[in-house]
Amino acid sequence: MNGFELHPQLAADSLPVCDLPLSAVRLVNDSTYPWLLLVPRQPGLVDIIDPAPDDRMVLMAEIGMACDALKALGPCDKLNVASLGNQVPQLHVHVIARRKDDAAWPNPVWGVAQAVPYGEADAERLISALSGFLMDHENR
Amino acid sequence: MNGFELHPQLAADSLPVCDLPLSAVRLVNDSTYPWLLLVPRQPGLVDIIDPAPDDRMVLMAEIGMACDALKALGPCDKLNVASLGNQVPQLHVHVIARRKDDAAWPNPVWGVAQAVPYGEADAERLISALSGFLMDHENR
Repeated sequence: MNGFELHPQLAADSLPVCDLPLSAVRLVNDSTYPWLLLVPRQPGLVDIIDPAPDDRMVLMAEIGMACDALKALGPCDKLNVASLGNQVPQLHVHVIARRKDDAAWPNPVWGVAQAVPYGEADAERLISALSGFLMDHENR
Repeated sequence: MNGFELHPQLAADSLPVCDLPLSAVRLVNDSTYPWLLLVPRQPGLVDIIDPAPDDRMVLMAEIGMACDALKALGPCDKLNVASLGNQVPQLHVHVIARRKDDAAWPNPVWGVAQAVPYGEADAERLISALSGFLMDHENR
């Protein structure tokens, strides 16, 4: 235990996928877009420059893994990667697979469409596939 | 010459600050927000996972430098860092200093307020300060 606790808003909006060395990987519970969050498991982080320099490199590697997982598991015309956090201050990185026919294209996803939660079976299947990809990738 | 050419839309929307080892640093010509772009100077990059893994680490370091520069040179309540590129496909990373009283807070900046170009003297002063900070930081 290092004092890290997931922000309750992030916990409410997303489902657990797996833990990478630095980050908890979460699936945003909105079937409108394949959308992951990376949440570094250290207390007190707000901005992307807050982790120690070595951990920022780990975070960049984990962003790459999340991008690879989304591209491997479904259609993706463009990856959107962002650390915003104006509303939820705990550092979290959005990794989103965009399609040219999705609800917000070509605009950013935030604030556009009402979230459409996954059905239970769909969420389980997607989380299993994502977790399998990431665990396999991590151990290479 | 490695075949890199800045996308004309990025060239039109921003002003040159300086070159870091990987990225051209540009100031978005919108005085509404202190807003930098990092554009890795390699041809054909679209997504943040497109640079080679070592170059991604350089990019992460340069993102950190851009964040530090914005925080050093003006008020900043939150850093927003994003690679979106749904409209301009050339890889570019937004680094934006947000304030709780800015035009878009707490929403993302894209598509909110009409750009307000800098006056010439203001642009020169800001670019000089940013460039000085980044060059000094790079040489440490």
